[in-house]
Amino acid sequence: MSRNNRRLAEGILFTDMYQLTMAQVYYRMGLHEKLAQFDHYFRSYPDYGLHPAGYCVNAGLEWLLDWMHQARFGAEEIAFLRGQTGVAKRPLFGADFLNWLERHGTFESISLQAIPEGRVIHPQVPITVVRGPLAIAQILETGLLNHLNYQILIATKAAQIRESAHGQLVLEFGLRRGPAQGANAGARAALIGGADYTSNVGVSAVLGYPPKGTHAHSMVQAFLALGGGELDAFRAYAEVYPDDCLLLVDTINTLESGVPNAIRVFEELRRKGHRPLGIRLDSGDLAYLAVQAARMLDAAGFEDTSIVLSNQLDEVTIWQIVTQIQEEAPRYNLDAERILRRLVYGVGTRLITSEGNSALDGVYKLVAVCDNGQWQPAIKISDTPEKIPNPGHKQVWRVYDSQGQATADLLSLADEDPRTEDELVLRHPSMYQKCRTLRRDEISLIEPLLVDVLDEGRLVYDLPDIESMRAQRRSDVERLHTGVRRLMRPHIYHVSLTQRLWDYKQSLIAATLSQGPLR
Amino acid sequence: MSRNNRRLAEGILFTDMYQLTMAQVYYRMGLHEKLAQFDHYFRSYPDYGLHPAGYCVNAGLEWLLDWMHQARFGAEEIAFLRGQTGVAKRPLFGADFLNWLERHGTFESISLQAIPEGRVIHPQVPITVVRGPLAIAQILETGLLNHLNYQILIATKAAQIRESAHGQLVLEFGLRRGPAQGANAGARAALIGGADYTSNVGVSAVLGYPPKGTHAHSMVQAFLALGGGELDAFRAYAEVYPDDCLLLVDTINTLESGVPNAIRVFEELRRKGHRPLGIRLDSGDLAYLAVQAARMLDAAGFEDTSIVLSNQLDEVTIWQIVTQIQEEAPRYNLDAERILRRLVYGVGTRLITSEGNSALDGVYKLVAVCDNGQWQPAIKISDTPEKIPNPGHKQVWRVYDSQGQATADLLSLADEDPRTEDELVLRHPSMYQKCRTLRRDEISLIEPLLVDVLDEGRLVYDLPDIESMRAQRRSDVERLHTGVRRLMRPHIYHVSLTQRLWDYKQSLIAATLSQGPLR
Repeated sequence: MSRNNRRLAEGILFTDMYQLTMAQVYYRMGLHEKLAQFDHYFRSYPDYGLHPAGYCVNAGLEWLLDWMHQARFGAEEIAFLRGQTGVAKRPLFGADFLNWLERHGTFESISLQAIPEGRVIHPQVPITVVRGPLAIAQILETGLLNHLNYQILIATKAAQIRESAHGQLVLEFGLRRGPAQGANAGARAALIGGADYTSNVGVSAVLGYPPKGTHAHSMVQAFLALGGGELDAFRAYAEVYPDDCLLLVDTINTLESGVPNAIRVFEELRRKGHRPLGIRLDSGDLAYLAVQAARMLDAAGFEDTSIVLSNQLDEVTIWQIVTQIQEEAPRYNLDAERILRRLVYGVGTRLITSEGNSALDGVYKLVAVCDNGQWQPAIKISDTPEKIPNPGHKQVWRVYDSQGQATADLLSLADEDPRTEDELVLRHPSMYQKCRTLRRDEISLIEPLLVDVLDEGRLVYDLPDIESMRAQRRSDVERLHTGVRRLMRPHIYHVSLTQRLWDYKQSLIAATLSQGPLR
Repeated sequence: MSRNNRRLAEGILFTDMYQLTMAQVYYRMGLHEKLAQFDHYFRSYPDYGLHPAGYCVNAGLEWLLDWMHQARFGAEEIAFLRGQTGVAKRPLFGADFLNWLERHGTFESISLQAIPEGRVIHPQVPITVVRGPLAIAQILETGLLNHLNYQILIATKAAQIRESAHGQLVLEFGLRRGPAQGANAGARAALIGGADYTSNVGVSAVLGYPPKGTHAHSMVQAFLALGGGELDAFRAYAEVYPDDCLLLVDTINTLESGVPNAIRVFEELRRKGHRPLGIRLDSGDLAYLAVQAARMLDAAGFEDTSIVLSNQLDEVTIWQIVTQIQEEAPRYNLDAERILRRLVYGVGTRLITSEGNSALDGVYKLVAVCDNGQWQPAIKISDTPEKIPNPGHKQVWRVYDSQGQATADLLSLADEDPRTEDELVLRHPSMYQKCRTLRRDEISLIEPLLVDVLDEGRLVYDLPDIESMRAQRRSDVERLHTGVRRLMRPHIYHVSLTQRLWDYKQSLIAATLSQGPLR
């Protein structure tokens, strides 16, 4: 796309057509400027097939805010809409509505609360709460979901990978198989959720991280094609990067060519006073090869070098590699833990696509509309009880038990403060039978999760940097029960309603159903 | 991201770090301006779990070319690289290399051949062939793969959906669950591969298509919250769009509320001389509900209205819906074919994420380097024979049988012209035993597939519009055997080497292996 076309395609028209047709209906009915509240939340944890996630990590807010700030209906956007015709060849959008849109079509009227990026989040819990004129808040739906759903998805996958890498470096390598420019959002989300660095240079540049990477098979191939060999390629690399020498050893044969050649070059570097960084393995049985390569590197006195693993890694593969090394290393009289501590995981395709579950089911649901100064709750009935949104204005609280572990997220009505209650009744959002009571002395902390971000378009929030988001993520993850964090069949974290919110929801459902189907 | 940060993150730094570290090695070794050829191809068809694709559809080239045209190392890019340091805190990139990069760091030196967008493509066949100075062609790798892999993936998924929708309209609805800005590339690819329209307004605007969409549950909810009902919402919509009235009927209860209310509104429209468009079903048993809704619409005299289906559709679900309607309609004395002919499929998440297989394994492999005016083939040995790239300069031919059906894609050496041969020997790319001979009279056409696109950065190709790409796709798909097109266990299309290319490849493998592992 040309620059101008990108501006057009990625601005406020980065939305679904029906948001605009609905906005015109609201306009014509005089409803367009009534204040409305939409809640953004997801319905269920990603399930990767082999296992589900036990928690998610929030991400995407800052880039959403940047988009909202830049998006507006200008002359070009209006001209495109003016040209749209219906079946009868008459314009779909009237001049009255388009004039209003040109005057008011920005997100400067939107107020927004959100759970901060980097925080652990759970299903059914409002992550982003939008209030604004009905027509504008409606148009925002698609762009908001697009920006947040994908980054939460990838931050969550990165957190899963982080769990199975227990403490070793994780590098994001997914740009080449990522979804066009979306791969940049994915790399950012990966950094928030669990990757330490990314190979993506552009995203590293704008986020202030050093991009990571060494060389590919093609460098060795180029030397081979020009009559040289792997050793020449390694020597050339070592000459240019004597203190940052990390060599990819599987172009020809890992154990018979790559590792011995790397060791020769490392010895040459050592004689010149440099410390080699290590090797990368990108094919074959990575656990077996890591053990054998470690043996060879140790024997040559390079015990401190890293072994970077890559090739279709994900949280399950890494877990399997760790387990295999734990079983295999002792057979060679090697300390498995020492091998594991020198590993670095380069994770590409399966992180940037969230392999196994490539979309988050985040939704944006109307929960209240303001009519003559009175907020009216909105409800949507569904045959599937867990699909019925929790109506009206709410607050979200995280309840920590006496050990300081997060034990539940609690949704309350906006005017409730569970911190003042003697005991907490936690109701399951849709199952009548499921109810739990916590006494005050079983609770160490009740923390509100939503913060004010936009007040009628004005930023009223200090945007944290990525490092702060990562610190928040680490702290939130540490306060989860181990059972919630485990890879396989994680324990289900409790998301609950207060008794008052439960009663309110039930009364609205009953009132709606009693009106009969044909109203 | 701010506008400036987006320019930085999506320009020439939209690449992996190791492309730049390798480029510097080439520069220091004096290899950076040697001409190199890289082939882009994918190794295997997407496998969606329930079934694999039997063919792919090419897409992404034009947006890649736009990116290449805009991408260059300017002051800001160079400044970022200048600031990168290694382990010893010394700069990773030298002033010599950065000066060269600032002077020569554009894609204006790249020549490129490609198979056009919209064409059916197969594994192992070079889709994009890049020639240029080694360092620049290396830096191009990541951006090229990113732009092409994702669009091919989505165009291919759209083609699968098109196959199972046999002839009915397919609408792309995926923006809200798509991968950030990448969703625009996905919508474009969907239009090339099989979707008729998209709900994505921005992409429709830049590609010149009318965006499609009507209204969401939230519109009905808003009227409910304000004391009205579904019927009020429908009437409002019909009043604004009397000739484009398509109503979502499942907010309350599809058959007891939605469809009867829609019919009331349709009758009102009819009395005023308008023709209603139809209804949309977005939950429940779509096949059952479509049959019942058709019955009710027919009874009210709205036989011509469409029934749009949406909700987690993909090629298998659509196939199942079609089958179920074929079995269920006769029980109500309805003509299944007539119901099927009024269906429209709205396909969202599962198209934009290529559900089941969310990345194409496209690679970019060095196949030749030019040394003192002599091209030297590059080869990479692998234990997996099908992973060994086909070396050197090649041409790609599509061979059509006497019925005019595509029977094989044939890779030849660049100086071969199989059109002049009396008979064709088709060798399997890696399996020695598999060989097939076609006589001249068994062949109706041999068509070269690669076209010249860039000649040292200059566009020498008339970029087709999306409509031409779609026509090409339709024509290519029609010339595939039905067995290749079928959803389940598709017949494997033949991709072959000429005898000369086969011999050339084997001699290079033998020569490389004979040099021994430790060279």
